Amino acid sequence: MSIFTKIIKGEIPSYKVAENNEFYAFLDINPNAKGHTLVVPKKEVDKFFELDKATYNGLMDFSRDVAIAMKKVISCERIGMAVIGLEVPHVHVHLIPLQKMEDIQFIKKVKLQPKEFEAVAKAISKEL
Amino acid sequence: MSIFTKIIKGEIPSYKVAENNEFYAFLDINPNAKGHTLVVPKKEVDKFFELDKATYNGLMDFSRDVAIAMKKVISCERIGMAVIGLEVPHVHVHLIPLQKMEDIQFIKKVKLQPKEFEAVAKAISKEL
Repeated sequence: MSIFTKIIKGEIPSYKVAENNEFYAFLDINPNAKGHTLVVPKKEVDKFFELDKATYNGLMDFSRDVAIAMKKVISCERIGMAVIGLEVPHVHVHLIPLQKMEDIQFIKKVKLQPKEFEAVAKAISKEL
Repeated sequence: MSIFTKIIKGEIPSYKVAENNEFYAFLDINPNAKGHTLVVPKKEVDKFFELDKATYNGLMDFSRDVAIAMKKVISCERIGMAVIGLEVPHVHVHLIPLQKMEDIQFIKKVKLQPKEFEAVAKAISKEL
């Protein structure tokens, strides 16, 4: 069972942003920028481009909704997206508030307090 | 007119991978890895999450087809995706063959000869 499946099942706590029958969005706890969100399909598939077309399309739609909500509450130039997947074998879409290139290079990390995570998760959630 | 619109119109040459009425895919000439492809909507819109839903969905479908074709001809662990957009104000999806994290960090570039670009564009194109 992947770490993301454990998060979806609530076995590992998360700052949830959004959820429906098929997808789950929550804050990355080692964020590149405040508001950095992960969107995952509940179905545990390793590779993004090996998702069946319906799940892929659903994931992209859900990610778009979350990104639009993020943009409303987080001060940034735009929301960037990255799908890499070399570390956790469970598809995850990174949605990252961007000001500059390094925000999406995974080289700079931001420290947030639990209350800040809670507040940003709740703020995004309210826009959905 | 963006540099990508000039490429789509043929005013600037490109190594074309695929094209339909709405989208155009071509090799990045400053690639992170061999086969690094850009997919752009012909409609010139700056921000990915400000694309209308139909164009967004079409772009994601087209990118998926291109990525699946890339995986067939390029030796890599998987195909990664990134949408950043801080440099050219015309939506573009990066599809990047990945072996390791740095392949999607835009910190390492690969030099290819024109014949290599031609060969890889043609090989991907044949799988579509």
